[in-house]
Amino acid sequence: MNSEDFQPNEQLLLRAVELLTSPENFTSTAPLPAKLPEMGIGSMDALSAMFDDVLAKSRDLGAPGFFAHMDPPTPAITWAMHLWTASRNQNLLHPDTAPRARELEKLAVDWIAPWFGMSGGHMTPGSTVANLTAIWAARESGCRVVVSGTGAHLSIRKSAHLLGMEHRIIDDWSNTGDLMDAVAVITAGTTSTGEIEPLDAASEAHWRHIDAAWSGPLRLSERHRHLLDGIESADSIAISAHKWLFQPKESAFILFADHETAHKSISIEGAYLAVPNIGVLGSHGTIAAPLIAMLLAFGREGIASMIDNSMTLADELAALVMAHADLELRSAPNCGVLCWRHKSVSVDDIKRHLPDDVMVSSTTINGEPWLRSVAANPNANPAKVVAGVLQAAEKSRRQ
Amino acid sequence: MNSEDFQPNEQLLLRAVELLTSPENFTSTAPLPAKLPEMGIGSMDALSAMFDDVLAKSRDLGAPGFFAHMDPPTPAITWAMHLWTASRNQNLLHPDTAPRARELEKLAVDWIAPWFGMSGGHMTPGSTVANLTAIWAARESGCRVVVSGTGAHLSIRKSAHLLGMEHRIIDDWSNTGDLMDAVAVITAGTTSTGEIEPLDAASEAHWRHIDAAWSGPLRLSERHRHLLDGIESADSIAISAHKWLFQPKESAFILFADHETAHKSISIEGAYLAVPNIGVLGSHGTIAAPLIAMLLAFGREGIASMIDNSMTLADELAALVMAHADLELRSAPNCGVLCWRHKSVSVDDIKRHLPDDVMVSSTTINGEPWLRSVAANPNANPAKVVAGVLQAAEKSRRQ
Repeated sequence: MNSEDFQPNEQLLLRAVELLTSPENFTSTAPLPAKLPEMGIGSMDALSAMFDDVLAKSRDLGAPGFFAHMDPPTPAITWAMHLWTASRNQNLLHPDTAPRARELEKLAVDWIAPWFGMSGGHMTPGSTVANLTAIWAARESGCRVVVSGTGAHLSIRKSAHLLGMEHRIIDDWSNTGDLMDAVAVITAGTTSTGEIEPLDAASEAHWRHIDAAWSGPLRLSERHRHLLDGIESADSIAISAHKWLFQPKESAFILFADHETAHKSISIEGAYLAVPNIGVLGSHGTIAAPLIAMLLAFGREGIASMIDNSMTLADELAALVMAHADLELRSAPNCGVLCWRHKSVSVDDIKRHLPDDVMVSSTTINGEPWLRSVAANPNANPAKVVAGVLQAAEKSRRQ
Repeated sequence: MNSEDFQPNEQLLLRAVELLTSPENFTSTAPLPAKLPEMGIGSMDALSAMFDDVLAKSRDLGAPGFFAHMDPPTPAITWAMHLWTASRNQNLLHPDTAPRARELEKLAVDWIAPWFGMSGGHMTPGSTVANLTAIWAARESGCRVVVSGTGAHLSIRKSAHLLGMEHRIIDDWSNTGDLMDAVAVITAGTTSTGEIEPLDAASEAHWRHIDAAWSGPLRLSERHRHLLDGIESADSIAISAHKWLFQPKESAFILFADHETAHKSISIEGAYLAVPNIGVLGSHGTIAAPLIAMLLAFGREGIASMIDNSMTLADELAALVMAHADLELRSAPNCGVLCWRHKSVSVDDIKRHLPDDVMVSSTTINGEPWLRSVAANPNANPAKVVAGVLQAAEKSRRQ
């Protein structure tokens, strides 16, 4: 290894593009060694050695049969940005090491926050950290209790646990009990069913946080933004960019109604820092760049149409399920999340026998297992997914 | 935006490589719009629009005059991996969405943990989260107090604050007081001065965590690994990969002596999860891939030689500072961290007048400001850095 290995190696990068765009021309290599190798094999051979694990044998989240988790495929412009940001390795912790990258993150927040009526915020490696950050700020503002609905994401429980706060789970937002010292966490698009809890609930809570990790981007859609009406009354909002904003992981937003006060309450100073360190992370990368590039490339209108298409795919899947005598729909899709199942073959058996090119996820609601399909993949083919599940049922019955 | 935008776009990716490898052929574009644009300009134009902010006007961490923060330049093989991992967007939260990526992270841990006598662990977006994770596990094992030295990173204070634990700062590891319910956080390579606190200290503590965010990779060097002798007695160790393992952000390890017990104590189950969610993050990307690729390319030996070279650069800088009558050295470099200053021009004035192509960081030790140079850049030129500081002093005096 020498200093040239840190320079742009055109041959290496062109080969990386070739393997990515024409994988069919390449034959896989031997498995990776079990221990850290003593000597290197060089960058070109290392690239080939990674082909299987990173590319060929990865899950194709954009395949027609993938209608499963909240993880989307990503547009190629975001890949180009990851190539670039990795090459520059700016650290947003220091103005010195990220003169423009800090501005880029501020710009990304400026582009997104107004759609939610928030004044600002920052980016985090996911909505778990975004939720933790919000509940931390709420605690600093005086909250002692976290109150959430039964459908809240596990990160709410995790955050309360980390922060040493009591966590009260309620069935009904119209019957919350005293919220004077509570942060009410209202979920817009629950993980299991996509349900949007009442966004105007808990108006008397000390702090109102809306976990819109999944559904937040609907706000950009003219057709669907009304689903999030009222979200602008929150004190803080978590939104994943690596879900319905089609970003590579790890990327999310925590937005605040009053971000200056909130940021001040979750900042720590350090002798080696020119500016305070805000939020959970210390060092922080240029995760805004792929988002800004994608929004530039397609505009609000382009992203919204992609989300609208995804919502339509969930409706189509629901229609196919309803139309089939052997299949059962739990309810109409919520925010592109559909829970369904086969009437006579268990969820586990279906999942076990799915064809390789079809994937659905699963969840448990009130003790009952369901298949779960989330419309994160704009290329999903509902008919293929239904056919795959029926095929799995057939295969399971024959065994 | 349509489904083709999610496919490998060879023309776009080749252009991204061209702009990265031959930036001199490109003229910068107009500033980015202040608001989210309604309509898109397409991926090719978006790429051009990002050139300035992401590439041209970023800080060059690998420039000869950059001898500043703990942020290294990154080898090109890691850029190729970021291109690939962004394209696949695997989510390690689900075995379904990361069949190989989960194995890659396990492999990265298997390659690194044995050098520290640890049984396993996982990757985090930085050592702040790694430290938080360790102190969380320590709390679950019964700790109520965090005890650290005065040089501990601010993330220790932040973690104690987040976790609702008392934080006791001590001057002297030989006089700690009762540690029966304490997690002792010993810093191997303090942020300000690079000092390694006694790694065998606090042997009676309930939990011993070593924050080796900066210095950890020295363990891979035959010449320098003795500096970390005793580290294998820790209960947990934090190591940044995006510092001295030359990884793009955000990348670090939390390693545990008994990772199975530790992971169990910091895991949360969820109805939609096939396996428990371990640690602070929820969704999690394939950050192991660039590290494994780099270690494959250069081997332990190659990385160690790069770290050894960096240590030599710090020694060279120290020698130049000592040899110059106008410059003052605080002490010999510790783990490649050097604190120094001009005898008659303030740290602030020096920093203000540095030439554009020279950068040092600064810190405050016992109330005294110092310039700080961290040997994260294997391409740094100590003579150029000293010349830049002397030039800044001259410029400052003339004003």
